Amino acid sequence: MDDLLDGLGLVDGHCHGVVGGPLDADAFAMLSTEASVPAPPGVSYLDGPIGSAIRRWCAPVLDLPVHTPVADYLARRAELGAERACRLLLRAARLTDLLVDTGIRGPADRWLDGDGLAAAAGARVTEVVRLEAVAERVAASGVTAAGFAPAFAAALTDATSAAVAVKSVLAYRHGFDIDPSRPSAQEVTVSAGGWLRSGTARLTDPVLLRHLLWCAVDAGLPIQLHTGFGDRDLALPRADPSLLRRWYEQAEPSGVPIVLLHCYPFHRQAGWLAQVYPNVYVDVGLTLGNVGAQATTVLGEFFELAPFGKILYSSDAFGLAELFLVGASQFRWALTHLLSAWLAAGAVSAADAEHLTRAVGTDNARRVYRLRTA
Amino acid sequence: MDDLLDGLGLVDGHCHGVVGGPLDADAFAMLSTEASVPAPPGVSYLDGPIGSAIRRWCAPVLDLPVHTPVADYLARRAELGAERACRLLLRAARLTDLLVDTGIRGPADRWLDGDGLAAAAGARVTEVVRLEAVAERVAASGVTAAGFAPAFAAALTDATSAAVAVKSVLAYRHGFDIDPSRPSAQEVTVSAGGWLRSGTARLTDPVLLRHLLWCAVDAGLPIQLHTGFGDRDLALPRADPSLLRRWYEQAEPSGVPIVLLHCYPFHRQAGWLAQVYPNVYVDVGLTLGNVGAQATTVLGEFFELAPFGKILYSSDAFGLAELFLVGASQFRWALTHLLSAWLAAGAVSAADAEHLTRAVGTDNARRVYRLRTA
Amino acid sequence: MDDLLDGLGLVDGHCHGVVGGPLDADAFAMLSTEASVPAPPGVSYLDGPIGSAIRRWCAPVLDLPVHTPVADYLARRAELGAERACRLLLRAARLTDLLVDTGIRGPADRWLDGDGLAAAAGARVTEVVRLEAVAERVAASGVTAAGFAPAFAAALTDATSAAVAVKSVLAYRHGFDIDPSRPSAQEVTVSAGGWLRSGTARLTDPVLLRHLLWCAVDAGLPIQLHTGFGDRDLALPRADPSLLRRWYEQAEPSGVPIVLLHCYPFHRQAGWLAQVYPNVYVDVGLTLGNVGAQATTVLGEFFELAPFGKILYSSDAFGLAELFLVGASQFRWALTHLLSAWLAAGAVSAADAEHLTRAVGTDNARRVYRLRTA
Repeated sequence: MDDLLDGLGLVDGHCHGVVGGPLDADAFAMLSTEASVPAPPGVSYLDGPIGSAIRRWCAPVLDLPVHTPVADYLARRAELGAERACRLLLRAARLTDLLVDTGIRGPADRWLDGDGLAAAAGARVTEVVRLEAVAERVAASGVTAAGFAPAFAAALTDATSAAVAVKSVLAYRHGFDIDPSRPSAQEVTVSAGGWLRSGTARLTDPVLLRHLLWCAVDAGLPIQLHTGFGDRDLALPRADPSLLRRWYEQAEPSGVPIVLLHCYPFHRQAGWLAQVYPNVYVDVGLTLGNVGAQATTVLGEFFELAPFGKILYSSDAFGLAELFLVGASQFRWALTHLLSAWLAAGAVSAADAEHLTRAVGTDNARRVYRLRTA
Repeated sequence: MDDLLDGLGLVDGHCHGVVGGPLDADAFAMLSTEASVPAPPGVSYLDGPIGSAIRRWCAPVLDLPVHTPVADYLARRAELGAERACRLLLRAARLTDLLVDTGIRGPADRWLDGDGLAAAAGARVTEVVRLEAVAERVAASGVTAAGFAPAFAAALTDATSAAVAVKSVLAYRHGFDIDPSRPSAQEVTVSAGGWLRSGTARLTDPVLLRHLLWCAVDAGLPIQLHTGFGDRDLALPRADPSLLRRWYEQAEPSGVPIVLLHCYPFHRQAGWLAQVYPNVYVDVGLTLGNVGAQATTVLGEFFELAPFGKILYSSDAFGLAELFLVGASQFRWALTHLLSAWLAAGAVSAADAEHLTRAVGTDNARRVYRLRTA
Repeated sequence: MDDLLDGLGLVDGHCHGVVGGPLDADAFAMLSTEASVPAPPGVSYLDGPIGSAIRRWCAPVLDLPVHTPVADYLARRAELGAERACRLLLRAARLTDLLVDTGIRGPADRWLDGDGLAAAAGARVTEVVRLEAVAERVAASGVTAAGFAPAFAAALTDATSAAVAVKSVLAYRHGFDIDPSRPSAQEVTVSAGGWLRSGTARLTDPVLLRHLLWCAVDAGLPIQLHTGFGDRDLALPRADPSLLRRWYEQAEPSGVPIVLLHCYPFHRQAGWLAQVYPNVYVDVGLTLGNVGAQATTVLGEFFELAPFGKILYSSDAFGLAELFLVGASQFRWALTHLLSAWLAAGAVSAADAEHLTRAVGTDNARRVYRLRTA
């Protein structure tokens, strides 16, 4: 198992760009957490699961002992230069493909999310288009209420010309407690008018949000959905993906794959959805990188109800090259650990374990996103 | 521990009939899953937790190596003949009693759920009466609105004359977010009128659904409740058994046991209910058979808050003889594994482990359902 | 690890008083459980996780073999005398500080929750003031509607003069599905009038309940919140602490720490809140003592998203001296077990494990509650 996973180049099915330039300690800490304000006195965001994982997996790549203290790690990172450190970290993740959500960009002046990221990582970069970002660009362009729907359709076609998937952040903008049916053209126009008149850049109108989902179904690309935890800009109970079952059902005839990202702490609910809806898939996303030493436990729970052909890997890395490596390393470690325990217990055969590893690490993503072979 | 559980004949407290005749590969796959439509290209329902469990536990019973590939397993099953294979699989489960929900029957021409099942399994079969099925038979018989309540009461008395429990599928028909109080006679008549006029065979009216629950309380037999996951015909968030606490409370004076089946992913909520409501019990149901190599993890979670006298075993097997054996084997394996770990950690004594095994495997069910001794 | 935790005096950040006098078997059983009525025939509340834990951790302190049967344990407890047994059990818990919620008192004539408890435990006792209890005393004192707010403010100032924290039982009185904003003075007066006219002693009015929360923010002491399971007097789905996120957000500028107690089965949600809200902390509370042999599993889940500086220990012990020892022993055992596994897997360094142990066992509580050094 160890050897197989060591040699297997992973598809990182959902990630973001990285800051390619220097970062001070505070900026580094803030990029490591889902928190949006500094920690209170006596608390450090790097003194926790994510910090432990960074020190565990990244320190050796920068020629430091495993579990090197954070300050020493940051000093070494600066000494090497951010560019070289990023390159070392990204390459150590051994990724063949990065599917990059370009709808949100980082705080720094040297943001890499296209060719620069591909070069640094030594991997193919393809794009995931964030639906709400496209809609907000259309709104900002000065469209009329009646013109919104056709302008969005055109903008989406344009934006996805080279994309492998689209993504919805409905969980952040409203929550999944929504009427999932396709809105009428008139409803869209009325809602677009309300939004445009409001002068608000941010799209939160539920009619328009579901209009975007249905445009995505029409576009035919796989749809990634943020589900479960993330930053504090969401109501966690409303990010339970099982709340959206009627949409999975209505979208089923299209055959478009719907990939539930992150899922935690609703990953068991997500596994059930992946068993009973042929068009629903689950992706470990942000979860494994965040849960530190508990990664094996949590990964095991993803494997309780979902068919093995329905589980995908991604890191949801954002900003720090470290998070690409942490995600991949946590996944490789947790899966190896889990399958070793299953083998020892006689629950699967060695051939099953190898098949499952390839499926989850690369084959499922290649099939769902129609990626070229590595 | 191993020896004790190997020798202990289990009570399967909730199951269904089996197809006693031949099954092709597609039909077998569909009976193995909670999904109701075929898997998409590249995905197989048997390439997952349930398939691994079938290959693990059932292949050796058909004289094949453990983890034999599915195609070889199905070939061998056909070679032996479905009838013989079923008999071998059912007997290997070592069950003393099967409590069979007769309210739903399978797709095949040779459906065994009474004497034929008992003979094949070498076990006693007793009946669990599905409340909604009785009500739907009454409605189909041409009753008036005012006549519904007495006709249902009579039909329930008749249907339960030899039954050991009744069952409600309120989770499928409405969800547990319901006013749990006993409806008035007038409310029942009004709702019955509405249902009968609708021409719909399926009962989903919330007033009538809770009327059925209260008739069940009056009947005095233990009441099994489908809770948690199942097929996609339910809203998972509304199948959380903790939503129904007011009904447990109102039904408490009757002393009628209420058995929460399946529960996952709300089995921790269910364990709490079993601790704080004297009339509430939890049954692992469909869960252990479905979660493959994770069975020990999940079973452990059932044991977090519930008193040991409140936990029961069942398989919820439906259609495939394999599922009776998978349920029983997963339970035996997971419980052995769990208790071995507890013993090794000093958390329980050997005598405790033996007591707990007998309680959960057979004694609790015999007491709750008033079964004759094995 | 073992040695460190053995030697580390814990801060028990949330507990109650104990019955210092004799208890018969029934009274002992009822104090061991969250149930409020006796168990049905064939079931014993002590035949389960909590009973196993009492027999495991307490029997040796009373010079009995580990896992001594309950009847023998109770006989030995009576033989020693309740007072001596309590003292032995409390001291065996090795606590430096007990933060005692004085807002609810036990059924017995010899209730210890102040100096007597401190003397028996050999630890400092400081007070946690229950907001609703203060409000109910004010209401019972004969105040007018308009006089309620100033009288409550004065009573809270008085009650907290020597307290280290306050506590809200909003979960029991309403649930967290509440408008969390600060009510206006007029709203408070109107609601107080309604409550006072109702003649009900128990405060359940949502406006007043959130008024109490905001008075607590103004008072500036850490606020403990009952979240998750407890006795049956709560709706579990409405006790999910993630429902209250808007209040954490609105209270954030005050800098007042909010400590989520118990949390189970929403401890993963609680860990997320502790990561993304700088003012939110999680406390294992009632949970570890209740889940028996599963304590390591559950504790691990508390460590998935929360920074290590945000996790606290308490027992929520009530009535039985045994529960102080069970809480502390389960915590020491589970943390040792968990960290040993993490060390063996290379997930943390030995220095990290030691730091984390001190943080969670004592340092975090000392900082949050501003306790004197041990």
